Amino acid sequence: MQLVSVDDLCALVKKIGIDTVFNGIVAQLRADFMRWPVFDKSPRHAIRSNEGVLELMPTADEDYYAVKIVNGHPNNPKDKKLTVCGLGLLYDVRSGYPLLFSEMTLLTAFRTAAVSALASQVLARPGSKSLAMIGCGAQSEFQVCAHQVLCGIDTVYYTDIDVAAMEKFANNLADRGLTLIPVSNISSATESADIIISATACEHAQRLLTLDNCRPGVHINAIGGDSPGKTECDSALLEKAMVVVEYLPQTKIEGETQQLSAPPHAELWQIMVGERVGRRTDSDITVFDSVGFAIEDYATLRWLYDQYADKKLNNKVTWVPEVTDPKNIFSLLQG
Amino acid sequence: MQLVSVDDLCALVKKIGIDTVFNGIVAQLRADFMRWPVFDKSPRHAIRSNEGVLELMPTADEDYYAVKIVNGHPNNPKDKKLTVCGLGLLYDVRSGYPLLFSEMTLLTAFRTAAVSALASQVLARPGSKSLAMIGCGAQSEFQVCAHQVLCGIDTVYYTDIDVAAMEKFANNLADRGLTLIPVSNISSATESADIIISATACEHAQRLLTLDNCRPGVHINAIGGDSPGKTECDSALLEKAMVVVEYLPQTKIEGETQQLSAPPHAELWQIMVGERVGRRTDSDITVFDSVGFAIEDYATLRWLYDQYADKKLNNKVTWVPEVTDPKNIFSLLQG
Repeated sequence: MQLVSVDDLCALVKKIGIDTVFNGIVAQLRADFMRWPVFDKSPRHAIRSNEGVLELMPTADEDYYAVKIVNGHPNNPKDKKLTVCGLGLLYDVRSGYPLLFSEMTLLTAFRTAAVSALASQVLARPGSKSLAMIGCGAQSEFQVCAHQVLCGIDTVYYTDIDVAAMEKFANNLADRGLTLIPVSNISSATESADIIISATACEHAQRLLTLDNCRPGVHINAIGGDSPGKTECDSALLEKAMVVVEYLPQTKIEGETQQLSAPPHAELWQIMVGERVGRRTDSDITVFDSVGFAIEDYATLRWLYDQYADKKLNNKVTWVPEVTDPKNIFSLLQG
Repeated sequence: MQLVSVDDLCALVKKIGIDTVFNGIVAQLRADFMRWPVFDKSPRHAIRSNEGVLELMPTADEDYYAVKIVNGHPNNPKDKKLTVCGLGLLYDVRSGYPLLFSEMTLLTAFRTAAVSALASQVLARPGSKSLAMIGCGAQSEFQVCAHQVLCGIDTVYYTDIDVAAMEKFANNLADRGLTLIPVSNISSATESADIIISATACEHAQRLLTLDNCRPGVHINAIGGDSPGKTECDSALLEKAMVVVEYLPQTKIEGETQQLSAPPHAELWQIMVGERVGRRTDSDITVFDSVGFAIEDYATLRWLYDQYADKKLNNKVTWVPEVTDPKNIFSLLQG
């Protein structure tokens, strides 16, 4: 079994570059979205406590099984801890043996941004060049890089109620060759943007994006609303927009879609395979209501596993007993 | 986060001894069974394939969250692979941060045997000294050692259709100071036994244990029947016996209990806390219908974590990003 720690992943990213990472993950995501029906799908398993939630996100096709274990603890930053951390496991379905154990905090940031860029490729107007980044938290730079690499974005309007977060955002992206334009409110960010990404730590139902501040033709990736009662978009905007989700049984509980009176337009894969139409005109408003789904983690772990398939990183440690007689594991404890 | 590989666990067991391991795990199991209602409980999450199954077994109290990932692949031994392998994670509920990642193949063998011995402590006749071991597979030596340490068993009748497995069993237990008596069939094993353990790789509904070969007063730990259609006990035996289970919503699907026309007598914890009566007379036949439940893995991981709490094994590797600003994980990838 390959072990990929935070340090290992950082070393990989620095070696091959962020752009290569995004290209690789999105290629795997695209392939897996195109064969969506083959995956075993279920809403995530959650155990809630006063402080937060711990969740399991499993899926499998006939070759690989993947599961992410991820928490959500909104008060963690007070203790200099991350709100969301992940760990992931990839298994061989045929033997049930583990192949890979990895950090998935950074990988989840990559995959969430990669899925968002994939949705923009599918739903945004061709030729989109400008992005409004609403919220400059932990996810923001990943979103911008993914959209630069995969959608050709060159201009970013960004805003946050935390000025320090805006400075951090600008510093982290300083060498990306982007035109970065700080603005003081959401309307100023969205007024000329082709694509809007909202990734805020909204703690309840908010109306950050409305029909007033979203111009016709814009594509919105709504990232921040991801649990019951936690939303970023005004319901009137959602009712007018073409809303696309990942996996409806999960999104209707956790996403912006919980505000909709009728089912959303489609799941993203349905548009990708041609089962449903996508954007019809340059004035449609499209919304990708992203809450994260296990197939996306599967794709990311598959990509990661391929990176190490020949390189054998940290695989000297034994995680499954090696025996000549499968009936004789007791002997491992003797002598 | 502590990492405990197969080699690490073997080194621990060799250092502190098998008896200490069983005493420690059963002490934690007993404490956790006594507070059973506080745990978050759900049937395991399973994804099945042609070759086998991959399962998630999560649970939590207000302090710790534990999840085991375990497979079941009956044809694995043909490839010199184990049928069942496990990996486990223990988390701090309050922060959602991981504490421990461990092999759980050997640990599952320990915990299954420990639970079995706990059930025998609760349900077998006082003064039980002899054991019938039906099946000499991977689990058998663990069962015998657990019953020697925790129930005072000194004599073991053992049988298997595989003579090589019987030899392996005798070799592995040669230095345990037990009277080991090989027999050629189940009736010969059970005719003078106080406790019967059936741990066979039954592939369908079998009638290994019947009213004819189980004498009055015996306690049976039925380990091998653990999935739909896979059972070891005759239904007439079960109807007459006092059947005790771990967690009914799971056992009624997977255990011997799937054959019962009425609900079983109790869950084991209910007898331990005095909510239900246990054995009434020395002639009662009691059956512990064991399929394994997440709280048992929780207890085992808790015990393991305590072993390393001061010793800091393999905890130099970073599994969650360490940041001074929780909004700035992107910076880890730079420079």
